[in-house]
Amino acid sequence: MAIGGSRESMTERQAAAPVSGAGPARRAANATALERLTGGHPFLVDVRPAIEVVPGMRPDLVLHAGPPLAWDEMVPPMQAAVAGALVYGGRCRTLDEAAALARDGRVQLAPAHDHGMVGPMAGVVSATMPVFVVRNETYGNVAFATINEGLGRVLRFGANDDSVLTRLAWIRDVLAPSLGAALRRSGPIDLRQMIGEALHRGDEAHNRNKAGTALFVRHVAPHLCRALAGDVAAQCLEFIGGNDHFFLNLSIAHSKAVTDAVGTVAGSSLVTAMAGNGVRFGLRVAGLGAAWITAPPDPPVGRMFEGFSQSDGVPLMGDSYVSEVAGVGAFALAAAPAIAGFIGGRAGEMVAHTQRMYGITAGEHPAFTIPALDFRGTPVGIDVDRVVATGVRPILNTGIAGRRPGVGQVGAGIASAPLACFVDAAARLAR
Amino acid sequence: MAIGGSRESMTERQAAAPVSGAGPARRAANATALERLTGGHPFLVDVRPAIEVVPGMRPDLVLHAGPPLAWDEMVPPMQAAVAGALVYGGRCRTLDEAAALARDGRVQLAPAHDHGMVGPMAGVVSATMPVFVVRNETYGNVAFATINEGLGRVLRFGANDDSVLTRLAWIRDVLAPSLGAALRRSGPIDLRQMIGEALHRGDEAHNRNKAGTALFVRHVAPHLCRALAGDVAAQCLEFIGGNDHFFLNLSIAHSKAVTDAVGTVAGSSLVTAMAGNGVRFGLRVAGLGAAWITAPPDPPVGRMFEGFSQSDGVPLMGDSYVSEVAGVGAFALAAAPAIAGFIGGRAGEMVAHTQRMYGITAGEHPAFTIPALDFRGTPVGIDVDRVVATGVRPILNTGIAGRRPGVGQVGAGIASAPLACFVDAAARLAR
Repeated sequence: MAIGGSRESMTERQAAAPVSGAGPARRAANATALERLTGGHPFLVDVRPAIEVVPGMRPDLVLHAGPPLAWDEMVPPMQAAVAGALVYGGRCRTLDEAAALARDGRVQLAPAHDHGMVGPMAGVVSATMPVFVVRNETYGNVAFATINEGLGRVLRFGANDDSVLTRLAWIRDVLAPSLGAALRRSGPIDLRQMIGEALHRGDEAHNRNKAGTALFVRHVAPHLCRALAGDVAAQCLEFIGGNDHFFLNLSIAHSKAVTDAVGTVAGSSLVTAMAGNGVRFGLRVAGLGAAWITAPPDPPVGRMFEGFSQSDGVPLMGDSYVSEVAGVGAFALAAAPAIAGFIGGRAGEMVAHTQRMYGITAGEHPAFTIPALDFRGTPVGIDVDRVVATGVRPILNTGIAGRRPGVGQVGAGIASAPLACFVDAAARLAR
Repeated sequence: MAIGGSRESMTERQAAAPVSGAGPARRAANATALERLTGGHPFLVDVRPAIEVVPGMRPDLVLHAGPPLAWDEMVPPMQAAVAGALVYGGRCRTLDEAAALARDGRVQLAPAHDHGMVGPMAGVVSATMPVFVVRNETYGNVAFATINEGLGRVLRFGANDDSVLTRLAWIRDVLAPSLGAALRRSGPIDLRQMIGEALHRGDEAHNRNKAGTALFVRHVAPHLCRALAGDVAAQCLEFIGGNDHFFLNLSIAHSKAVTDAVGTVAGSSLVTAMAGNGVRFGLRVAGLGAAWITAPPDPPVGRMFEGFSQSDGVPLMGDSYVSEVAGVGAFALAAAPAIAGFIGGRAGEMVAHTQRMYGITAGEHPAFTIPALDFRGTPVGIDVDRVVATGVRPILNTGIAGRRPGVGQVGAGIASAPLACFVDAAARLAR
């Protein structure tokens, strides 16, 4: 398949493009950061309980999406997800007890991002939840994500009733060990290759994961057949194949694995993380290390589902905006014209969205190419300097969670990261 | 998913578009033909040996692609496929004996199309080969196609060595009964829906069937798991999932089921079949019934694979051009920009190809829509009058078979149907 030039030459050519005010030190730092961002090669290697593999995971710790925040600050669906996770994990018996545990500090809360982990929407993870283990073979780092539960009444949207916890138990007790057994037969699964192929099949690997999910099913199906009793394999395949968003969590684990590999690069203005907790939107920049640079998000924007209005939704929430940092998601909308059926808009706008992002990124992805743009690489390496210089904000594909817990998704669409983060980051970089 | 208007209104609007010289009788006849062509709803209902289900199938009959022709006229890969089929079926022991049987008329040859059947390339079918049974639920007619063998050394390209016959025996003895068992559990599979979805995932359902194949795997995998021993299910899933063209034969069986339902419509100038036998290209028109209107095809055109030139290829061969008659294949190229990696060309050309076909078709398909064209229906209902009036020839996605038997595919690309057939058909319609 045609790819527009080798990784090395692309990185060099793009990073050399002048940005007003960027000196040679900034350009060199950004070239280093871009090289790490686009050179990562993550594989799915295992499925394990979080407590066995996630650094710093403990029974009394619950992880959540976005920058740090206290229990009292959390939007209702995130509180509900935390409470549900505590009951699910057997830490207490009722949701009220769970809320009290979190409120009183008897259970700690921390950003998933700080534990090598990402979760969509509320992004809540507790110790016994099984997680995908994704290893970046280029740089040796490991990232994690939970297993996608499906749509409708699910924990990540703040639903926490019995049906939700029963499904989570089935995922823990049946699906996760089955996938683990299949993986031990199949060997590691090349997620970079799978995402690249999915982009050629109309996904953008964030809000549209139909092709990625089908590719994953195709890959694991024979291994599930050989590893398990027929009925168990069938149940797993029905669950995975019945959820067009299943691949989302693999995609964001991939993105986390490549973005974490960038780490700190002194002097670089490239973004390494974007995430929301429903209250604050946070940015990390290679030149500023692990610091979260935060700002209030816009009110929810996008296509609200029938019966809901903007005021029913929570602002930007979730770790899945790591997709856009890694050069997929909204940055790859030109690859996914059929997404208009889900989020609205016209095909030409999807192309225009991607085209606009080339103006604020340092490079083009060597492995993620867009057929409709004659296999041009996706825009990748969001540059704080370019964002501030142009005023063009990075676009984000997003689901919109209902403000009332348990309502689930009330909309979806294309949002933008708040400019204030980028202005703040540019000022810190200048210091 | 957005679909551009109801079937009725679309058919009416399109069929009403004036064609120079078309009177009200022609317009009414074409509206009837278009209604049948776009209203068919084929389901995969079974997988059975040809002799049990294909009308007129006999042990001493071998079916082939395209209009009728004699053994001596056949291009070498078609002869080789016929000989291979006779050995495979146990009719004789050696390929030389097989050739003698066919040459002496002790085995009959007939177009697959005349038996409700379609096959890609040589399109050879013998009595014991398993076939997909596809029923058009709207009109009650049934169509058939063989099971795709994969790429490389395969019978449809004239390969007939032991490895080819062994694979065909495995398809007959293991894969076909397994798929039959899975189908009995799953119930009929909606091919119209599956093709519509595949077009939203970057297929055009003729030369690109990656998404369709993945959709088929996703659908049958749990049923295979429940119906069969794990190792057998795994083998089947590996075979299907390992062949990105597997869905092709389901797609053309679908197209045959909808085009056969048109049948004869007195006064209609819409095309009901296009097929090649490597020597002659043939056309059927609703107003002319089952008659083949033939003309010599152009020399092979397309992107020749490395090491091959045009003279190594056979001109238009195969029944798979029924795809374009049904409004998919080359007519849906705008849905499949990634096909450029296989057949060459730029994304803009793929869109232009589809756009041009709207000028020679009577309608837009209500179920096959193109995301990149804001879900406009594919052009469907090739109108002999419009082809002759505009000089625009229907485009065809095609593989190019090597002239030497067993070489396999030597190229692929976009060809055009010979204009002479259409001129001839227009003259016959005028009589």
